Amino acid sequence: MATLKDVAKETGLAVSTVSRVLNSRGYISEETRNNVFNAMKKLNYQPNEMARSLSKQTTNTIGVIVPHIRHPYFAELISNIESAANSRKYKILLFNSKDRDEKEIEILDMCNQNRVAGIILCSGTVAMNKFDKINVPLITIERNLEKGTACVECDNLKGGRLAAKHLIELGCKNLVQISGVCGNYMPADSRETGFIEVCEEYKIAHQELKTNETQYNVGEYKELIEDVLLNNKGVDGIFASSDLIAAQILQVCAKLKIKVPQQLKVVGFDDVLVASLTTPTITTIHQPIKEMAQMAISLLIEASNGKIVPSKTTLPVSLMKREST
Amino acid sequence: MATLKDVAKETGLAVSTVSRVLNSRGYISEETRNNVFNAMKKLNYQPNEMARSLSKQTTNTIGVIVPHIRHPYFAELISNIESAANSRKYKILLFNSKDRDEKEIEILDMCNQNRVAGIILCSGTVAMNKFDKINVPLITIERNLEKGTACVECDNLKGGRLAAKHLIELGCKNLVQISGVCGNYMPADSRETGFIEVCEEYKIAHQELKTNETQYNVGEYKELIEDVLLNNKGVDGIFASSDLIAAQILQVCAKLKIKVPQQLKVVGFDDVLVASLTTPTITTIHQPIKEMAQMAISLLIEASNGKIVPSKTTLPVSLMKREST
Repeated sequence: MATLKDVAKETGLAVSTVSRVLNSRGYISEETRNNVFNAMKKLNYQPNEMARSLSKQTTNTIGVIVPHIRHPYFAELISNIESAANSRKYKILLFNSKDRDEKEIEILDMCNQNRVAGIILCSGTVAMNKFDKINVPLITIERNLEKGTACVECDNLKGGRLAAKHLIELGCKNLVQISGVCGNYMPADSRETGFIEVCEEYKIAHQELKTNETQYNVGEYKELIEDVLLNNKGVDGIFASSDLIAAQILQVCAKLKIKVPQQLKVVGFDDVLVASLTTPTITTIHQPIKEMAQMAISLLIEASNGKIVPSKTTLPVSLMKREST
Repeated sequence: MATLKDVAKETGLAVSTVSRVLNSRGYISEETRNNVFNAMKKLNYQPNEMARSLSKQTTNTIGVIVPHIRHPYFAELISNIESAANSRKYKILLFNSKDRDEKEIEILDMCNQNRVAGIILCSGTVAMNKFDKINVPLITIERNLEKGTACVECDNLKGGRLAAKHLIELGCKNLVQISGVCGNYMPADSRETGFIEVCEEYKIAHQELKTNETQYNVGEYKELIEDVLLNNKGVDGIFASSDLIAAQILQVCAKLKIKVPQQLKVVGFDDVLVASLTTPTITTIHQPIKEMAQMAISLLIEASNGKIVPSKTTLPVSLMKREST
């Protein structure tokens, strides 16, 4: 690979002059500048980002940690994070944590060793004290973290309220909510809170069910859903805390010959690709994933430049009406 | 952040001794080794990967380029590439090319500037001559590339044959195949070839349709599918070249009140998450995505160590029978 020296040799200029052109330092004539750029092109000279990064002791790389890349929500989120990072000339180092504690520690070490400019964490189980080691901005998405720099969330409470209100306005009298993982307190828990608030306001029968961690990690909820539907014959509306769960409710309904939306109405959460690929398509709460990704990148870059950033940013959600209600 | 000097100071040893411990060079007593590791732990010393990489002029980072991270096939593939890379102590720099030529050139430059150990390319439109600049191993997945180091594919021809055979054995007499993007020659085109071969062998009526690039980039095929079903009333089986297309066939059938699988049987391709999330679930050709990802990582690491690797590796596919047939 061509070096700065090769470019200097090709142009007959001193290495220091070529370096000044590259870093736009001091006075350089138009002619010299053109000579250098032509030689760079001819020799396919690529500045060595590692050398630059070493002298700056940081990189324009962002570590992104998610539990499951293949989960449609995270796939959508990563896609938007990459686009937002790219538009600011940053790159992403992507890690699958699968929510395993020891894997997350390893990843944090890797991020440190590679002098990332910051970390975006969407993974749930990392214990707080693990972050003592991190000395770059840490931005979380839909994840509480005492020691994080900033957290980006969607308005989960409002989302739960919108879902309940929509089901009630369509005439449902007996509601069920199925939420993600029990145990860890997560921002997504507010979806349930909002749902309960509205059910209480309207005096509508409601119950809340939580999936377990194995179900979450495998993404398989059908057994639980079948139990719910067989043991609660009067249920006429379900609010699922992800489109992945909602899609599986539709499958169980088809198996049990329950007509959606005639006999049972279903509302999901996230508004990822799968919500518009099912039959019927899924009415859902739209998370502004694109805007959340852009916000996380902006916060990270500002914080890494030493600016004070808001510790929590909540972006609005909306009801996306489709065929399941 | 603690440096090598700080570790030396803490232990009272020379910097060169600490460095020897870190790099396992020469004789070091057990006691010295323990002292150094304890001091590293205490000071939270993280070796600077950038400095190491600079002296080696390469990194343990792999550039991964896909057209659309959010597409279920690529999400699944990236997830498996990350796992395979991680188990070999490599990291991935992920890029969304959205199949735009100028974006891909920019990404290749970024990979060069960051001295990646190699590149895995799953993106379709990069013109051949762009790769003249690349001087690290370039592994393609499901993508022909004259100048690549090695290409990993699934047995697309066999996949097309399996799909056609399955539909014919179930009694279909009038088949349609809907394939990805027309234009560029891609390994996936062999799915159509295999499909046609079997239809001809069994003397079954068949026609092949191609989606266009806009449909591929947006992932929206419903209009095309509705046209096909309205203008070809006798069609009783469709082989779609992705599960994404197959899911949309199910949606159009629901709209047109065509019963699947009773009136129309549908076979997809890929076996990604969405194939088991639809109602009915999708019979599909299983791509060994995990094994393809592992193979790509192995080939890349071997090639970067100067070994000769096979220029093309084809992995087997299988029929995954579900409810749509």
